[in-house]
Amino acid sequence: MKLGMVGLGKMGGNMAARLRDKGHEVVGYDFDPQVSDVGSLAELVGRLEAPRTVWLMVPAGEPTDSAVEELGGLLDAGDLVIDGGNSHYVKDREHADALKDKGVHYVDAGVSGGVWGRENGYGIMVGGAAEDVARARPVFDALTPDEGGGFVHAGGVGAGHFVKMVHNGIEYGMMQAFAEGFELMQASDIVDDVPGTFDSWREGTVVRSWLLDLLVRALEEDPELEGLRGYAQDSGEGRWTVQAAVDHAVPAPAITAALYARFASRQEDSPAMKVIAALRNQFGGHAVATATDDPVRTPRS
Amino acid sequence: MKLGMVGLGKMGGNMAARLRDKGHEVVGYDFDPQVSDVGSLAELVGRLEAPRTVWLMVPAGEPTDSAVEELGGLLDAGDLVIDGGNSHYVKDREHADALKDKGVHYVDAGVSGGVWGRENGYGIMVGGAAEDVARARPVFDALTPDEGGGFVHAGGVGAGHFVKMVHNGIEYGMMQAFAEGFELMQASDIVDDVPGTFDSWREGTVVRSWLLDLLVRALEEDPELEGLRGYAQDSGEGRWTVQAAVDHAVPAPAITAALYARFASRQEDSPAMKVIAALRNQFGGHAVATATDDPVRTPRS
Amino acid sequence: MKLGMVGLGKMGGNMAARLRDKGHEVVGYDFDPQVSDVGSLAELVGRLEAPRTVWLMVPAGEPTDSAVEELGGLLDAGDLVIDGGNSHYVKDREHADALKDKGVHYVDAGVSGGVWGRENGYGIMVGGAAEDVARARPVFDALTPDEGGGFVHAGGVGAGHFVKMVHNGIEYGMMQAFAEGFELMQASDIVDDVPGTFDSWREGTVVRSWLLDLLVRALEEDPELEGLRGYAQDSGEGRWTVQAAVDHAVPAPAITAALYARFASRQEDSPAMKVIAALRNQFGGHAVATATDDPVRTPRS
Amino acid sequence: MKLGMVGLGKMGGNMAARLRDKGHEVVGYDFDPQVSDVGSLAELVGRLEAPRTVWLMVPAGEPTDSAVEELGGLLDAGDLVIDGGNSHYVKDREHADALKDKGVHYVDAGVSGGVWGRENGYGIMVGGAAEDVARARPVFDALTPDEGGGFVHAGGVGAGHFVKMVHNGIEYGMMQAFAEGFELMQASDIVDDVPGTFDSWREGTVVRSWLLDLLVRALEEDPELEGLRGYAQDSGEGRWTVQAAVDHAVPAPAITAALYARFASRQEDSPAMKVIAALRNQFGGHAVATATDDPVRTPRS
Repeated sequence: MKLGMVGLGKMGGNMAARLRDKGHEVVGYDFDPQVSDVGSLAELVGRLEAPRTVWLMVPAGEPTDSAVEELGGLLDAGDLVIDGGNSHYVKDREHADALKDKGVHYVDAGVSGGVWGRENGYGIMVGGAAEDVARARPVFDALTPDEGGGFVHAGGVGAGHFVKMVHNGIEYGMMQAFAEGFELMQASDIVDDVPGTFDSWREGTVVRSWLLDLLVRALEEDPELEGLRGYAQDSGEGRWTVQAAVDHAVPAPAITAALYARFASRQEDSPAMKVIAALRNQFGGHAVATATDDPVRTPRS
Repeated sequence: MKLGMVGLGKMGGNMAARLRDKGHEVVGYDFDPQVSDVGSLAELVGRLEAPRTVWLMVPAGEPTDSAVEELGGLLDAGDLVIDGGNSHYVKDREHADALKDKGVHYVDAGVSGGVWGRENGYGIMVGGAAEDVARARPVFDALTPDEGGGFVHAGGVGAGHFVKMVHNGIEYGMMQAFAEGFELMQASDIVDDVPGTFDSWREGTVVRSWLLDLLVRALEEDPELEGLRGYAQDSGEGRWTVQAAVDHAVPAPAITAALYARFASRQEDSPAMKVIAALRNQFGGHAVATATDDPVRTPRS
Repeated sequence: MKLGMVGLGKMGGNMAARLRDKGHEVVGYDFDPQVSDVGSLAELVGRLEAPRTVWLMVPAGEPTDSAVEELGGLLDAGDLVIDGGNSHYVKDREHADALKDKGVHYVDAGVSGGVWGRENGYGIMVGGAAEDVARARPVFDALTPDEGGGFVHAGGVGAGHFVKMVHNGIEYGMMQAFAEGFELMQASDIVDDVPGTFDSWREGTVVRSWLLDLLVRALEEDPELEGLRGYAQDSGEGRWTVQAAVDHAVPAPAITAALYARFASRQEDSPAMKVIAALRNQFGGHAVATATDDPVRTPRS
Repeated sequence: MKLGMVGLGKMGGNMAARLRDKGHEVVGYDFDPQVSDVGSLAELVGRLEAPRTVWLMVPAGEPTDSAVEELGGLLDAGDLVIDGGNSHYVKDREHADALKDKGVHYVDAGVSGGVWGRENGYGIMVGGAAEDVARARPVFDALTPDEGGGFVHAGGVGAGHFVKMVHNGIEYGMMQAFAEGFELMQASDIVDDVPGTFDSWREGTVVRSWLLDLLVRALEEDPELEGLRGYAQDSGEGRWTVQAAVDHAVPAPAITAALYARFASRQEDSPAMKVIAALRNQFGGHAVATATDDPVRTPRS
C-alpha cells in the first residue's frame, strides 16, 4: 500500500526502506531536505490519495504534538494517523480525540528493534480500533520479522505505547538483576572468574536471555568493565512505568529499584545522604541537649 | 572414571544415569535400598580404589554435614569429595577444612538443570583447587551439555555454590520484573490482550529470554492465571544472596524486592500493615491529646 | 480581618470557629444549609468588601476546580483566593493562572492538624507571592499554635501544597519503619514484650516521636493488634510524592516502599505473585522442553 | 550494690560514674591503667564478693568474646555477667551457654543514650531470666532516667540486644524518610525555604520527632548542607536487622532501602551501574547480530 512517513531518522529511515523493500510505496518527509521526498507536510498529504495513511516517527512530546496538530488541519475524514514514536499513552488519547473531531482515525504503535530492525524486522505493538488496525495490517506485516511473530494488537488507543512502556520497565528490572549479581560476585573475595561464570550460564540455566548474551559480549571486551563509568541514563518509559504503577496501585518494587539506581548513578553527591551524615553528626554533637544513640560514633572502651 | 554417588533422588539418580551413559562407572548409595548399589557409605568407599572421588547429592544442611563427617572418617588422604548439593558457600569452607585435616580434597559444585539435565546436560559451576577440579574434569564434561558450555571453574572452595546462589538471586529479580509487568498490564483498563503481548515479545525485543518463553507457555494454559494463588515459596539461595549482599555492602534492591514480595505473598495478613492501620486510627481517634493529620480520615467539607 | 470560608466540614468548620475565636469575621458557605451563612458563592462574595479574601476548604479535584472557576467569575481584580485543601501542586499553578487573567490573586496552603487543630492550632505551609502571603498573615497567625511556630512561607504558588505532600511522604516512611520493626519483633521467638519495648523507647532514644507515642497508645489498647486487619488505605499525597520524586529524578526508595506496602495490603491475591507461581510450576513441568532449575521443586535424594 | 565494670571508655566510664553518683560501688577495669581501678580481670573478680555482678562494656566481637571466656574461668557458680555492648543476639546465646556450663548467669543489655546518658539516663533493654534481671534491677534503675521509663525486660537471653538492633533498624528507616523528603524539596524548583519548612513541622504535625529536631538544628548551622559529603557509614545493627528480617521471612523494604542507600553512598563508582552502561552500549552497538531496543540511544528522526 501507499503511505506517508514523517521523520526519516535512524528509525523512520530504516522503516521506510524496509517497507519499500517489501513492495510498499512510501512518501517520506523530514526536516532534512537531503533525505526528504517532499518539502512540507502539506505536500506529503497532497501526494497521498484518500483514505490516506501517515506514519509518524518523530520524537515524543512537542515534535509529535505539533505534527499531529498540523496533520489534523491537512487530512480528510477517513484518513489514518499512526504514531510509531515513543509517546506517552495518555497523550495518545488526547491526539486521538483531537483528530476524531475531524473524522481522522488514530493508531498508536510501540516499535522495538532499533538499528537491526531493518534487516531482522521490528516488534510492533499497536493500540486502536480493530478496523483501523486491520487497514494498516499490511504495513505491520512488512515491518515485523519474516518468520512471523513480533506483533500484537494490545487494545484500544494508547495500548500499543502502554505495553511498549511496560516492556521497557521489565527490561529495567532484568538489567538491574544482572547488574546486582555482577557487583556481588565482583565484591566477594570468592569469585575469580566473573566473565566465565556469566558465559557458563548461557547454556541450561534459568537466566539465559538476550541480555545475558549482551553482557557476556561486553565482558569479553572489558572483563572488569574498567573502561566504563557507573553512570546510566534513563528513558521516559522507565519513569512512566513507575508512575503508571502508582496510578494503578500496583506494587512495582523491582522496576522502581532499577529506576532509582539509575537516578543515583548520575549524582555527584547525594543530598539525601548529606542528611544522614548531618543527623549522625548531631547524635554525637556537643550542643545536643538530650540523649543520643549511635553505636558507631560513640566508641566503647 | 569411577566414582561414588551419594544420594540417588531425582537429581543424583539422573546424574548417575547420565554419567553411566557417557561411560563412567558409578557406585551409588541411597537410604532407599531399592535404588542403592551398596548398603552403607563404608561399603561404597570400599568399592572404590584410591584416589577415590565421591559426589554428594544430598540436601543441604544436616544431611550434607553428616555425610561429610562420616566420609572424613572413611576416606584416605588424597581422596576427593565433591558436594553437588545446594550448600551455603560458608559451609563449603568448613567442610573443606574438616576434610583437609585428613588430607581429603574438596570441591563444591553448583548444579543447574533439574529434571531436564539428564538429557540436555547440566550447568556446573565449581569451586576448589585447580588440580582437584582438573582431576574431576571428565565427570564435569560428561554432565555438561554435549555441545559445550555450561561449565565454569569460578574460584576456590565455595565459589561454585556462591555463583549458583547469585544465579538464583538474579533469577528472582528477573521473575519479579516480568511479574510486575504482568500485574500492571492486567490492572490497567487499557490492555486487552496480555498473553498476546508477552508472546509478541519473543521476537526482536530486549526482554526475550527463557523465562519469557515459560511465561508465554503458562499464559497459553491459563490466560489470566485464574487457577493459581499468588503464593510463592522461596529457596535458601534467594535469602543467602541478600544476606551475602549485606555482608559485602552491595546494594541489591531489585533482588531484595523480589525476595520480600515472596515473603509477603505467604502472609494471610501483614503484621506491619496492622501497625499502619493502628496508627491511622490513632490520627483520627478520640483520645488523642494532640494534633492530627490525615487527609483521608479527616474529610473536609 | 473579614474573610469567606467555602466548605464548613470537619476541617473548614473548625477553622472558621478558631478564626472567630481569635476575632476575625468569617462568612461561611457550605452545601449544607444548616451550617451555611449564605445561600450561594455569589451571596458570599456579595457579603465581603473588596479587596476580598476567600479561603477554600473543599475536597481536591473537581470540587476545588469548580469552586475556583466560579469564584473567577464572581471576584474582582485585587481579590485573593486561598486554597487550603489537598490540591496537587501542579493544579495550584493552573488555578493561579486562570485567576490571574482576571487579576485575582492566589495562595495555596497545606494545612495539618486535623480535629485537634481548632484547640491546638494548625500547621500551615503556604505558597504564593510575598505580598499575597503578607496580606493573609493575620489569618495564618490565628490558625497556627498560640505559642508560635507551625508556619512557613515555603515558596511561590504550589510550594505550600508541595511541602505538605512531602510531609505526608515522610510520614509514610516513618510509619513503615515502625511497622517493619513491630513485625520483626513479633515474628521472632525472642521478644516476649513488644508493647513494653516500644514504650521503653519513649525516653532517651533516637526514635522518640509522636508516631511512637501513638503506637504505644494503640498497643495499650490491643497489644498484638489482633483486632485490626493489615489493610491500609493511601492518600493522594503518598502517590504524588513518589511521582514527584520520579519527575525530579530523586531516588525515594523508603517512601516508595511504604506506598507499595499499602498497595499490597489491599490485594486479596497478588497477580504478580501468580506469575511467580506460574513460572515455578513451569520449571518443574512436564511439557518443558529444555533445562530447568529450581532447588525447591526438584528435591534431591 | 557492688559491681564490676569492664571497659571504661566513653560509654562504660560515664555509666560507672552515674552508678557511683547513685550510690553504687563500682570496681572498674580497663586496658588503660590511667582509668582502671585494678590491673587485671582476675583482680577485679577478687575485689567482688560472691554472688558477683560484672558488667561488660567493651566492643562487640573478639573483645567481648575473649572477656566472656576469661570471666568464665574466673567467676564462680551463681555469679552474673551482663553484656551491655553491641553484641549480636545470636552471640548472646553462645555466651550464655558457655557460662551456664560453669553455673554463671548471663543477661544481655542494649544500651541507648550515648554521651548524654550520664546526665539524662540511658535507655536499657535487657534479655535474660527473670531472677537474673531482678537481681540487677538496682543497677538498671540507676542507669535509666530519674523520671522513670527507658527500661524493658524484653525476653530471654538475646532479647535485649535483639530489640536494640530493631530500634536501630527503625532509626535507619526514619532517617531515610527525612533524607528523601529533603532531597525532593531541594531538587524541586518550587521550595525556596527548606530549613524553614522543616522547622514549621516541629509543631502540630505527624512527623514531629527528635530526629526532626536534630535535622532543624543541622540546617540552622548549614542550610543547604554544603559542608557535608553525602557519605554515610552503617553500624552492625542496620545490617543485622535486615539479615534477621530475611531469616524470619519478614519483608522490611524501607529499612533495607535505608541500608542500601548508605552502601551506595560510599561507592566512588557503582559496579552495578557499569553493567547497565555496558548493556546500553551493547544495544546500540555495531557487532550486535540481533534486534535492539533503546529509545534513548536510537534517536528517531
